[in-house]
Amino acid sequence: MADSPDFERTMSPLELYEKLTAQGDQVRALKTVKSDKAEIDAAIQLLLKMKLEYKQVTGQDYKAGSPPSENSAPFNGATADGSNDEDTVDPWNVSTTNAKGVDYDKLIVRFGSSKIDQQLVDRIEKVSGQKPHRFLRRGIFFSHRDMHQVLDAYEKQKSFYLYTGRGPSSEAMHVGHLIPFIFTKWLQDVFDIPLVIQLTDDEKYLWKDLTIEECHRFAVENAKDIIACGFDVNKTFIFSDLDYMGASPEFYRNVVKIEKHVTFNQVKGIFGFTDSDCIGKISFPAIQAAPSFSNSFPQIFGSRKDIQCLIPCAIDQDPYFRMTRDVAPRIGYPKPALLHSTFFPALQGAQTKMSASDANSSIFLTDTPKQIKTKVNKHAFSGGKDTVEEHRKHGGNPDVDVSFMYLTFFLEDDEQLEKIRQDYASGALLTGELKKMLIDTLQPMIAQHQERRKQVTDETVKQFMTPRPLNFKH
Amino acid sequence: MADSPDFERTMSPLELYEKLTAQGDQVRALKTVKSDKAEIDAAIQLLLKMKLEYKQVTGQDYKAGSPPSENSAPFNGATADGSNDEDTVDPWNVSTTNAKGVDYDKLIVRFGSSKIDQQLVDRIEKVSGQKPHRFLRRGIFFSHRDMHQVLDAYEKQKSFYLYTGRGPSSEAMHVGHLIPFIFTKWLQDVFDIPLVIQLTDDEKYLWKDLTIEECHRFAVENAKDIIACGFDVNKTFIFSDLDYMGASPEFYRNVVKIEKHVTFNQVKGIFGFTDSDCIGKISFPAIQAAPSFSNSFPQIFGSRKDIQCLIPCAIDQDPYFRMTRDVAPRIGYPKPALLHSTFFPALQGAQTKMSASDANSSIFLTDTPKQIKTKVNKHAFSGGKDTVEEHRKHGGNPDVDVSFMYLTFFLEDDEQLEKIRQDYASGALLTGELKKMLIDTLQPMIAQHQERRKQVTDETVKQFMTPRPLNFKH
Repeated sequence: MADSPDFERTMSPLELYEKLTAQGDQVRALKTVKSDKAEIDAAIQLLLKMKLEYKQVTGQDYKAGSPPSENSAPFNGATADGSNDEDTVDPWNVSTTNAKGVDYDKLIVRFGSSKIDQQLVDRIEKVSGQKPHRFLRRGIFFSHRDMHQVLDAYEKQKSFYLYTGRGPSSEAMHVGHLIPFIFTKWLQDVFDIPLVIQLTDDEKYLWKDLTIEECHRFAVENAKDIIACGFDVNKTFIFSDLDYMGASPEFYRNVVKIEKHVTFNQVKGIFGFTDSDCIGKISFPAIQAAPSFSNSFPQIFGSRKDIQCLIPCAIDQDPYFRMTRDVAPRIGYPKPALLHSTFFPALQGAQTKMSASDANSSIFLTDTPKQIKTKVNKHAFSGGKDTVEEHRKHGGNPDVDVSFMYLTFFLEDDEQLEKIRQDYASGALLTGELKKMLIDTLQPMIAQHQERRKQVTDETVKQFMTPRPLNFKH
Repeated sequence: MADSPDFERTMSPLELYEKLTAQGDQVRALKTVKSDKAEIDAAIQLLLKMKLEYKQVTGQDYKAGSPPSENSAPFNGATADGSNDEDTVDPWNVSTTNAKGVDYDKLIVRFGSSKIDQQLVDRIEKVSGQKPHRFLRRGIFFSHRDMHQVLDAYEKQKSFYLYTGRGPSSEAMHVGHLIPFIFTKWLQDVFDIPLVIQLTDDEKYLWKDLTIEECHRFAVENAKDIIACGFDVNKTFIFSDLDYMGASPEFYRNVVKIEKHVTFNQVKGIFGFTDSDCIGKISFPAIQAAPSFSNSFPQIFGSRKDIQCLIPCAIDQDPYFRMTRDVAPRIGYPKPALLHSTFFPALQGAQTKMSASDANSSIFLTDTPKQIKTKVNKHAFSGGKDTVEEHRKHGGNPDVDVSFMYLTFFLEDDEQLEKIRQDYASGALLTGELKKMLIDTLQPMIAQHQERRKQVTDETVKQFMTPRPLNFKH
């Protein structure tokens, strides 16, 4: 709730719920010790008054053991004031009608997270002693929850760990899938901390028309691409849910704890599940939540449950972690902190998230230099004008130009990027020239990735995916 | 469906669903190979007609991937003809207003199971070569599903395995809890087959106000009482869900498979879950279903998924296995067969199931000879008359007399039992004398159990609860 100070003026539904529960305990305690009748009556009167207030605030009857969710507002399509919003952002759908992409400032308000402002970027630089990653400098990681708290603790020698993940729905990963991993590797390097990576092969089995065996195979194949991002094997544990759930009683215990504290009403509100959804989907959010708690990994953290977790992920995964943050204090665990990224645009434009099933919607990690060249030239949506003459005269629009957007993700040099932006906007740089710059950036980057992936043996994968101790300074 | 021949005259919702799905595949196949338009149109017409029929039969729209449940009738309170029924029987509630207890013949009709008739008892005797257990001779195990199929296969040297369980909600077990275990041990002995026993400590955590640690401790304590029933360690695997889920990827894979094939609508209909229930409860039925499939235990059965499972349990557990039998063919597994027992009556009378939290509602496995004597004399509901004179004149009613009911469970000698029944009904046997007979039966039985339980060391428990190969003849 620290993220949304506006809501603190009145008591939140959860606070009300907790006070109500405490008052119920109080009444029972008074009855047990056979207190004075007047005293018991007064306590009951207060309890009834609180129940009435709870009903007014939440619209629901108080029920012991069924707390309200962190966000009582429905997840999609409506802001806090009830107005409609054009953008759809949830773990399964991202769409907008705006060519520049989703309106991220609005999303911050809707989700109740905080903007990563210059002050926070500066602070990360100060605490880590490293130049901020280009994803931070350029607002690609744009939103957070509790990052200041993580840095406060880190300054006092209290360490934390990283958690990110991927849903392995196919063998094919594209450059967009690398964004959280590239950034997470940077965080791992500059803060020198352990990292757990969840491959939700069980989720993909539940949601897609795939067999368990296929999903598990995709998990292992995707692990190779993830390892090729350069993670340190001594600080990184990659796991398939289908494997790890059956290999860690502690992990399962946390899943059950979370499952006990989330109702169907809550997941319905957060994820839009319906009565026709299978019970596997309905309980899955607990499995994505569990790695946020350090005692899910006793091989790394022992029985410690107080180690703060930081989750870098795309903003569409936030619903899972809003739910997680809601549950955490009720089961005695710290809330995970978050860093949210924007979406990587499809070659066809920023209106939609890319699709792994459309080979022309992005640059895949298996593409040849020739395929990259053809795709960029043929499919990358251009912000340029129709003719060279018009372009020279009026300039192009880098804000909707996909080649320029991709360079924002992958070109390291800030000055060079700014010069490209200005030249394109002025008309000095033509679309073909801009596309060539992107091709020249992507070709070696993908070739190097392929080279590193080739080095990843089955033995290496097994090493990363074996539950084991990691380097962790307490 | 073999159990309910009446329903086979018209197509069942599930059969309709399967035909519909096949027809949908057919339409797609015709489109893919670009068949003649008239042919495609005809197939589509048929598909639409079937969808209409499906809607008429089930009251729901056909939805790919969401089959109807085995029993579309609501679980409680209503029979197939829509009339109300006095008895409530589900995994959490059993109640009746009849002093003789639940009407089991009605239950067989409502649940769509089959009666264990003399013919089946004779057949079990013939196939096993052993005198049928008193629970079979006396209709205590009174209902079944597919038991003839199990015996058919067994006669052709196709073996099967047993699965039963217990929800460890406290340390205290009473004699009623032993019924399924006493009978299961007999089945294990006469058929010489492996047995798995599930302790649903996760379920108890989800349903009760207990910690995970308490539930797990109860599971281990209960295992000692179960082991004391005399199970063969070479043929018996006892497991806590909290342990085994985190120790067997194969078990979890089956849980996820089941979870994918059951909707919230279905568990709502079967178990009466509501939107306010936690997501752990909603998905739990998949965990109780999973041990019905042999490849959940690779250490015992390897990768074989075709070994038939037979589940002896109290009838209130049937909803779980109706759901399991519904799912089984859709994930390529055989349906488990079942043997259902009646309920063990509370000392206060057969109207309710016993409560482990009321020490006077039953004989506990920890009771001293004196406690047994006091409880029977003081609390066992009597079918006798108010005065000795009246009793001698009119006789007692053994059908509602709890002492007589208990003797039906525990006195081995059929002739002696029948004589007691006649003498009590005629008035020759007084209530005090009947109670003494029960006390004389229970005291040595409980003392022997306590003696055997004392022999059960932590090492023995560990042995039973370690996943390992069992003696199993294929």
